[in-house]
Amino acid sequence: MPDYQAPLRDLRFVMDEMLDYPAHYARLPGGEEASPDVIGAILEEGARFARQVLLPLNQSGDREGCLFEGGDVKAPKGFKAAYALYVKAGWPSLAADPEQGGQGLPPSLAMVLSEMICATNLAWGMYPGLSHGAADALRNHGTEEQQATYLAKLVEGTWTGTMCLTEAHCGTDLGLIKTRAVPNNDGSYAVTGTKIFISAGDHDLAENIVHLVLAKLPDAPEGSRGISLFVVPKFMPNEAGEPGERNGVVCGSLEHKMGIHGNATCVMNFDAAKGFLVGAPHQGLTCMFTMMNAARIGVGIQGLGLTEASFQNALAYARGRLQMRALSGTKAPEKAADPIIVHPDVRRMLLTQKAFAEGGRMLVLYTAQMIDIVEHGPDAVEKERAETLLGLLTPIVKAFLTEVGFEATNEGVQVFGGHGFIQEWGMEQLVRDARITRLYEGTTGIQALDLLGRKVLMSQGESLKVFTREIHKFCQAEEGNGELAEFVRPLAKLNQEWGELTMAIGMKAMNDREEVGAASVDYLMYAGYVTLAYLFARAAKQARVALAGSSDEAAFYLAKLDTARFFYQRLLPRTRAHRAAIETGAKPLMAISAEDFGLGFEI
Amino acid sequence: MPDYQAPLRDLRFVMDEMLDYPAHYARLPGGEEASPDVIGAILEEGARFARQVLLPLNQSGDREGCLFEGGDVKAPKGFKAAYALYVKAGWPSLAADPEQGGQGLPPSLAMVLSEMICATNLAWGMYPGLSHGAADALRNHGTEEQQATYLAKLVEGTWTGTMCLTEAHCGTDLGLIKTRAVPNNDGSYAVTGTKIFISAGDHDLAENIVHLVLAKLPDAPEGSRGISLFVVPKFMPNEAGEPGERNGVVCGSLEHKMGIHGNATCVMNFDAAKGFLVGAPHQGLTCMFTMMNAARIGVGIQGLGLTEASFQNALAYARGRLQMRALSGTKAPEKAADPIIVHPDVRRMLLTQKAFAEGGRMLVLYTAQMIDIVEHGPDAVEKERAETLLGLLTPIVKAFLTEVGFEATNEGVQVFGGHGFIQEWGMEQLVRDARITRLYEGTTGIQALDLLGRKVLMSQGESLKVFTREIHKFCQAEEGNGELAEFVRPLAKLNQEWGELTMAIGMKAMNDREEVGAASVDYLMYAGYVTLAYLFARAAKQARVALAGSSDEAAFYLAKLDTARFFYQRLLPRTRAHRAAIETGAKPLMAISAEDFGLGFEI
Repeated sequence: MPDYQAPLRDLRFVMDEMLDYPAHYARLPGGEEASPDVIGAILEEGARFARQVLLPLNQSGDREGCLFEGGDVKAPKGFKAAYALYVKAGWPSLAADPEQGGQGLPPSLAMVLSEMICATNLAWGMYPGLSHGAADALRNHGTEEQQATYLAKLVEGTWTGTMCLTEAHCGTDLGLIKTRAVPNNDGSYAVTGTKIFISAGDHDLAENIVHLVLAKLPDAPEGSRGISLFVVPKFMPNEAGEPGERNGVVCGSLEHKMGIHGNATCVMNFDAAKGFLVGAPHQGLTCMFTMMNAARIGVGIQGLGLTEASFQNALAYARGRLQMRALSGTKAPEKAADPIIVHPDVRRMLLTQKAFAEGGRMLVLYTAQMIDIVEHGPDAVEKERAETLLGLLTPIVKAFLTEVGFEATNEGVQVFGGHGFIQEWGMEQLVRDARITRLYEGTTGIQALDLLGRKVLMSQGESLKVFTREIHKFCQAEEGNGELAEFVRPLAKLNQEWGELTMAIGMKAMNDREEVGAASVDYLMYAGYVTLAYLFARAAKQARVALAGSSDEAAFYLAKLDTARFFYQRLLPRTRAHRAAIETGAKPLMAISAEDFGLGFEI
Repeated sequence: MPDYQAPLRDLRFVMDEMLDYPAHYARLPGGEEASPDVIGAILEEGARFARQVLLPLNQSGDREGCLFEGGDVKAPKGFKAAYALYVKAGWPSLAADPEQGGQGLPPSLAMVLSEMICATNLAWGMYPGLSHGAADALRNHGTEEQQATYLAKLVEGTWTGTMCLTEAHCGTDLGLIKTRAVPNNDGSYAVTGTKIFISAGDHDLAENIVHLVLAKLPDAPEGSRGISLFVVPKFMPNEAGEPGERNGVVCGSLEHKMGIHGNATCVMNFDAAKGFLVGAPHQGLTCMFTMMNAARIGVGIQGLGLTEASFQNALAYARGRLQMRALSGTKAPEKAADPIIVHPDVRRMLLTQKAFAEGGRMLVLYTAQMIDIVEHGPDAVEKERAETLLGLLTPIVKAFLTEVGFEATNEGVQVFGGHGFIQEWGMEQLVRDARITRLYEGTTGIQALDLLGRKVLMSQGESLKVFTREIHKFCQAEEGNGELAEFVRPLAKLNQEWGELTMAIGMKAMNDREEVGAASVDYLMYAGYVTLAYLFARAAKQARVALAGSSDEAAFYLAKLDTARFFYQRLLPRTRAHRAAIETGAKPLMAISAEDFGLGFEI
């Protein structure tokens, strides 16, 4: 069975040493609570919960799946009890506002815990995970009454939330939704329609489920400007605020999926279900983006967690599995063969996982600081800058970390050889679970359009410049630092190239909008590699500083430098392929007609 | 449910037009049988069998899996009846020697059919598929008696074969096997041991199963030089040559796997099972390579088949699924949204699938000609050259086509968005089934060492030169052909670079053998892209020739040019990343110690 240790040492490096979280937290209102000691204790407690409670349920949950019986959904054995422990320990309320019953710790802290949850039991983690988006929507757009009724319950975790957006004929294109909301006499609405792919749509973990539902009002304009958001509880809250009468929303069936079997992915039927408008009429898309952005970062963290889980278990296997002798001569003469970690290609796979795990962690924690600032920062200018950076980085966190997470979990299977294909080892489950992360909350293609089209080009490149200027400053400051030249020189070059490449796409797009779509995914991957290169350069700097002091952990910092070098030398060259693909433009994609695509096999 | 049409038009293009199969067949002894008409009829019949018999059993076989009851294994419903039809139609004997009951058609023809089988039902295809290797081993190394007893049955298909190599503690490193063979008094051997991952190890499709088993004789030298090969039937043939007494070999259990659920992957227990030595004592590894090489090409074809299957269904979905408007303006105003095939990034994914399918098909059919020549060619010089090329191309066919097959099937899921993750659509099964192809019959890492270490460097680069000289000649011949310059110029450059890159690795490897392992997988992928570039250039040439004539199929040839262009402009630049990774050498892989790998999380 797979094991997992939360990467506490690496977290400490990124948070305390590299990104100076102590100073960051100290500047947030109420941040004095978040002392390194408190943070340390919370992380250790979270690590224990993930390893001892969630990890043992991961394989059994996958095998068992969810049960749909008599119209009700049951999560796999043990999920409910684990959730009760989670609520009892106060995890759901960690980063919520004290006014709403939360503990008022910074959001970034919840994200660190989220990595541990995703690494040990992704399917379980999605039950509480979906509540964040629902809570965000209510906090930002709900009435006071809605907040009093639903938000407090979501914060304490006794109720969970969902996001009901997708319908069978539309996922990306929500303007096409058919679910209707007709006003009742009492100010509520009768919501009718069928939603699909509703994660945690029904289950037995919580007393009640709070659905946030996109639907159209009778007078709605066509398309995406005619969507409104509604809160629709599974059980109507009674006067005491507790679950009362059953509402007209039921699970119609469970989807059979490639992975995340332990999470209930539901078809949800709304039959004149009682709902309440959240935000203004026809403004549902704006409200939805509030949910989506948090969810997208959350999915990026799923990619990171799975990468780390796969890495740790592949490493253990590579140290223990004996097979062949090293090409340069026997390394373990006392054994029948050498452990496979002596083989360079096995190391290539492990280092790929390690670099994506550590790089992804830096990216998430860097982004998490922006979230802290956006939500709680005391300074308006700083807040605006953080908002811009967060907007830019969100699609990168979501899509890049899930794309490389899929690669990394597959490398984990590959390290195991044929055994990786066998369910008992647990490595193939990580691949199956990772596969959804490239799809939901907007596919990689959608994230890429968001990054290049919406964030970069629509701001005339200004949002990108906020980031590339920061990288430029770092490079300038370290220009004379010979010890960092192996990182700073290629980084400075790439950073400049990123701007030029963007400008070139922008110019082409003025003549042909398809150029944006044609470049988008390669552009996003390029952006991801450059972003990680920046963060690895900063990590290398920090490692050098530590090594220059009298560290008794020299091995840790030297390993960090080795990982940064591997990233620069072995993974960063992929930008060459992405750049070349971008530069060929739309023509090779658009030339062939939809009909002619099939001429090789269609009769 | 997924559909599938055998790509008969594309096959005709590659076989008849580009690689001149009619002339190739005419030169083989007995090749006059293989007229284009006969070939055409066989392919159409095979296409029908794949689509009508195998395809409908693919999803049900995946869901149902195999049954292990009372010591016996049952394949999923319908598999046995399909196999009976297959045998009755004479498919197993198509390319076998008439002296052994075969129809004497060229091996390449069986490979074309194999693509169709793999595209429609990979799990089913592995029941007859494993017989080829067993038959090859007996044909090349078996005694006359062994051939009379087992080979004829394998050829007619009433019995199937297996390859029993792997044990729990060794897959790649077969020198470590523990299975023992002790001589009996009657010239037979008592084989005892446990083999794992035995595909089609037990099942109810055939009357008898012929296991080819690696084991060690009592006086065996240590390591891989001490392995011998044995034939061990499930039922001992009686005097009439029919299955008689049960032998001491039983299935111990079935593996639970990520994919190919319809195929029985067995733990096989040999308990003093009666076996017969095949080939000389201690020469089992040589015999095994005879089986392995055929099997490796077979696995490459699996990658190709799955790529084509995923492409066809993703194309159909992309034409029908309506979502968003084209960035350049509405394309289908009469519909609620445009079909997603208008979006450049969807086209990028479809074209990636298409290019790998068509490129893979060319590679398989090019390699198949070498197999025809090696097995039946009339000319010794030509035979030697084909043998060298086949040795060089085998690891590329196996590993490159399975690596890109996995990518392509994943693109298929991605085109479907969230629906791709749902089992009913059948797209995720193709990914799960494809995942094993990168692992079995030697992982990608092992193929890469075979290519770079054994085939290229051990021959001092001579085997590579046989191929690069052919590419060079092609480039020279087309140098003045302006219509092909977009392909020939980059190809000529890459072809030269390939040689230089190889030389540089060879030089480094003289000082440090680890350089071979460090470069190997990137080298293999690089080699795969250049090889496909060569074949696409030839396809483009052929398309130009056809277009210059009075073809009424101009659209087909123009689409071929578009696909070649997409490959050159969008996929071939990946060689830049592989080259850069190769050039960094072993150092970034070997720097970190096995202990220090885990410093981020280990306490």
